[in-house]
Amino acid sequence: MTDAHQTLTVADIDFGSDNLIPAVSQDAETGEVLVIAFMNPMSLQKTLETGDAWFWSRSRRELWHKGATSGNYLRVQSISVNCEENSLVLKVNPDGPACHTGNRSCFYRELDWRPNR
Amino acid sequence: MTDAHQTLTVADIDFGSDNLIPAVSQDAETGEVLVIAFMNPMSLQKTLETGDAWFWSRSRRELWHKGATSGNYLRVQSISVNCEENSLVLKVNPDGPACHTGNRSCFYRELDWRPNR
Repeated sequence: MTDAHQTLTVADIDFGSDNLIPAVSQDAETGEVLVIAFMNPMSLQKTLETGDAWFWSRSRRELWHKGATSGNYLRVQSISVNCEENSLVLKVNPDGPACHTGNRSCFYRELDWRPNR
Repeated sequence: MTDAHQTLTVADIDFGSDNLIPAVSQDAETGEVLVIAFMNPMSLQKTLETGDAWFWSRSRRELWHKGATSGNYLRVQSISVNCEENSLVLKVNPDGPACHTGNRSCFYRELDWRPNR
């Protein structure tokens, strides 16, 4: 088992050939997953500088300061890194609903499916 | 606010131009994020058929039955879909450590950073 106390810096992150990694924002209090988005190096750098979550919008092809339109910023408390250093979990305190629909989380619907076992 | 009780089927999922969507596996009991991986339509179909999490390995370019090597399958309890229908949250019961390092979660390390506010 690898040492859980090892810490990492931005230089350790592997952004891969498309220069984007998935980043999950999880409510620091409840553990609810709020948003999954992508980060490039600049958005991670802005996140670290400001303490708010910044992403890369693949549809708009631009840097995206989450909350800049709605006022519902995600205040980042900590950032965890996976074993392969190519995905992130942000523990955040949301200022308001994280979803543009007004829902607290973007994941407010389920697939119509239950395990068959 | 959009109806939280609306359900979706596989046909509603937008796999995008690269035919891959990010999928977060979250421990159904603790809420801990265990793994972030990618799914193509076939891996989602296999997940629904078997009740285990299947992904698409971008490095190996092959369908990936999580746990097939280690025995530590992820037993999927429910699947939530985001507002834009292009990412998934799987609530899972893991058979054992989800990470190939032996850690319970792949996110066992933090960035060496704290918010400056």
